[in-house]
Amino acid sequence: MALIVHKYGGTSMGSTERIRNVAKRVAKWVRAGHQLVVVPSAMSGETNRLLGLAKELSPASTTDAVQRELDMIASTGEQVSVGLLSIALQAEGMQAVSYAGWQVPVQTDSSYTKARIQSIDDARVRADLAQGKVVVITGFQGIDGDGHITTLGRGGSDTSAVAVAAAMKADECLIFTDVDGVYTTDPRVVPEARRMNVISFEEMLEMASLGSKVLQIRSVEFAGKYQVPLRVLSSLTDPMIPVDVEMHSGTLITFEEDQKMETAVVSGIAFSRDEAKVTLRNVPDTPGVAYSILGPVAAANIDVDMILQNISQQGMTDFSFTVNRNDFVRTLELLKHQIGPTVGAGEVVSDDKVAKVSIVGIGMRSHVGVASLMFRTLAEEGINILMISTSEIKTSVLIHDKYMELAVRALHKAFELDQVTAVPEA
Amino acid sequence: MALIVHKYGGTSMGSTERIRNVAKRVAKWVRAGHQLVVVPSAMSGETNRLLGLAKELSPASTTDAVQRELDMIASTGEQVSVGLLSIALQAEGMQAVSYAGWQVPVQTDSSYTKARIQSIDDARVRADLAQGKVVVITGFQGIDGDGHITTLGRGGSDTSAVAVAAAMKADECLIFTDVDGVYTTDPRVVPEARRMNVISFEEMLEMASLGSKVLQIRSVEFAGKYQVPLRVLSSLTDPMIPVDVEMHSGTLITFEEDQKMETAVVSGIAFSRDEAKVTLRNVPDTPGVAYSILGPVAAANIDVDMILQNISQQGMTDFSFTVNRNDFVRTLELLKHQIGPTVGAGEVVSDDKVAKVSIVGIGMRSHVGVASLMFRTLAEEGINILMISTSEIKTSVLIHDKYMELAVRALHKAFELDQVTAVPEA
Repeated sequence: MALIVHKYGGTSMGSTERIRNVAKRVAKWVRAGHQLVVVPSAMSGETNRLLGLAKELSPASTTDAVQRELDMIASTGEQVSVGLLSIALQAEGMQAVSYAGWQVPVQTDSSYTKARIQSIDDARVRADLAQGKVVVITGFQGIDGDGHITTLGRGGSDTSAVAVAAAMKADECLIFTDVDGVYTTDPRVVPEARRMNVISFEEMLEMASLGSKVLQIRSVEFAGKYQVPLRVLSSLTDPMIPVDVEMHSGTLITFEEDQKMETAVVSGIAFSRDEAKVTLRNVPDTPGVAYSILGPVAAANIDVDMILQNISQQGMTDFSFTVNRNDFVRTLELLKHQIGPTVGAGEVVSDDKVAKVSIVGIGMRSHVGVASLMFRTLAEEGINILMISTSEIKTSVLIHDKYMELAVRALHKAFELDQVTAVPEA
Repeated sequence: MALIVHKYGGTSMGSTERIRNVAKRVAKWVRAGHQLVVVPSAMSGETNRLLGLAKELSPASTTDAVQRELDMIASTGEQVSVGLLSIALQAEGMQAVSYAGWQVPVQTDSSYTKARIQSIDDARVRADLAQGKVVVITGFQGIDGDGHITTLGRGGSDTSAVAVAAAMKADECLIFTDVDGVYTTDPRVVPEARRMNVISFEEMLEMASLGSKVLQIRSVEFAGKYQVPLRVLSSLTDPMIPVDVEMHSGTLITFEEDQKMETAVVSGIAFSRDEAKVTLRNVPDTPGVAYSILGPVAAANIDVDMILQNISQQGMTDFSFTVNRNDFVRTLELLKHQIGPTVGAGEVVSDDKVAKVSIVGIGMRSHVGVASLMFRTLAEEGINILMISTSEIKTSVLIHDKYMELAVRALHKAFELDQVTAVPEA
């Protein structure tokens, strides 16, 4: 008997028929002898509907008092889901009970709309499991020290599920979603993309943060920190598929490196079009100039990704960095009207038609020449590299976005990601 | 400065535009110098939508475990409302904060879907009011001793508002709804029906329980018990109507009899078509026979209203009573297959084409001849009376339902309810 956490996304909970399928799947695991805690998201579209109503009433306000009310409103979507799923489980002959975040409680800080989980009390849940009940807990939300409802931000239900699994020391946390696992790259771009049976947390972190939107990045961080084995798998399969097949399907995200049975140097290719590049020209190359530029950007809550400072010529340099495309206009304003004049820089050059492509792999640690194969491949395709950044297990390049698909396909082939023999499934 | 509780029904909260109007109205009262606690219902249609989803998953189940989940689900409608209203109030320049029932807390018993309020802790609310905030509290719900969410049953938000007003010792509780007060009878049946400026709690109780669906009966009981002055008024008027006009509009339900400035013997006429009559014929007229018949009916959770036992003839009697039309089929089954055989009765005769018409008035206490004017009026219209029941301040008759409107109109005229001079409004 194992203690298993299931997480179901909004699409999996999208209608009463789908909720019934979720209940059948959970019931099957219980009948196979396991203890089950289930964390469902709100029904798809519900959170947007609720926040849309709020926005009609207060289009622009971002005060703490309004944010608190947004959490009060948005958290109801998950509360409806846990109630409905519990009823569906009872209709399947299970004993089931639902809890909102505050009932567990899932304790968080007070950062409304983007709270962080601080602790989870598992006493109540354990008592229910011991009585043979399935426990259904709201994702996405918690309660702060003063008894206010908080939410964890978009995709927060993944994090809730992993946090519950960590607190309960669950044997595995299964994330059921509308894709059947983590792929070497997006199959819509590269039809030959292959589902991985196993991926390490570090690789998954790079894949998640680089635009593979399978899992919320915070949930992967959490899983890594508390060493919760995570599995991503499809909720669109037959719910009555045998448990011993299902428990080996999808992609396992593991913290045990020796479990990583695939031998590829590069595991996957991530990419993102949400990039924009800005350059401040003719910046006096004095000590502290990078801070003079990036300090105000950070203060404006704009995340900077890649940074490039050219070699100084006659005491002047060009300073480039990338930001999320959503922050592009704000960043430009800041550079033109505040930072540029302050540091005595020349003109501002910008480009929001750029994309980032990254190769990711634990194997890069011990293999030289990986980056150079990447650069050669891109050169052979005639793709100009605008910026480069590297870490221990990834290399990213910024290119013109019209070349993005071409680059991803060429790299996928060059690193033979379509040819690695998959580990046979049990 | 007064402490005022406002309650807004589902229609008043039915869209963001209407919620904005509610916020304007509340803000106007705050600007006039009052402390405001607001109890809104769920947006109209929302509770039905949520319970409809639950019903799709479990059409028939009424176990305690399912009822618990229904409360978990249904309570979210009000939680969304309080969040939206708080945001709208903030957009009006007010400070506002919302609380779900469990946050106040509103303590109830554990009877899911029909819980009763046991106590309300007003400390948190008072602290917010002292800080100049408007406090918005969910109607319809609370928390039981074990931390489970409960709901009070349909229309429970009226009760919540009155209970909050009682706990806070509010100066008045204003129930804003889609009618502009309590009428002498339903204006759709009698166009001459007149809005009352004042009505006593006892009269209102009889009017509410007899089918005038303006207020949930439990809220009137609560208001009477804790002597909370209640006012029913329209939320469809201009929200910027001056406060000193609004505070005298609608109908005041008062516990002070000397405030009752209208002198009519009969204050109003209530009626209900939700009636059904059953008769058990040839029952042996022995001691305890009424209990033998009504005991099992009560045990089946069926409310009995009017009861009639004919004079015994040769040791046999006919025993008639009325039930809600929804319980009619169940009652018949019970009589035919269980009660009838047990008490050795003859055939069962039934009629679900009946209606109840009642005249209500505090003045009946001290005036004789009121009932006889009622009977004479019905006789003159050729309407046969099937059953009669009386209390200190009402007389009810059961008649064929095809005569219901005719009876109501004739009685309204006979008791001159269209002619009483209204007390001028301030």
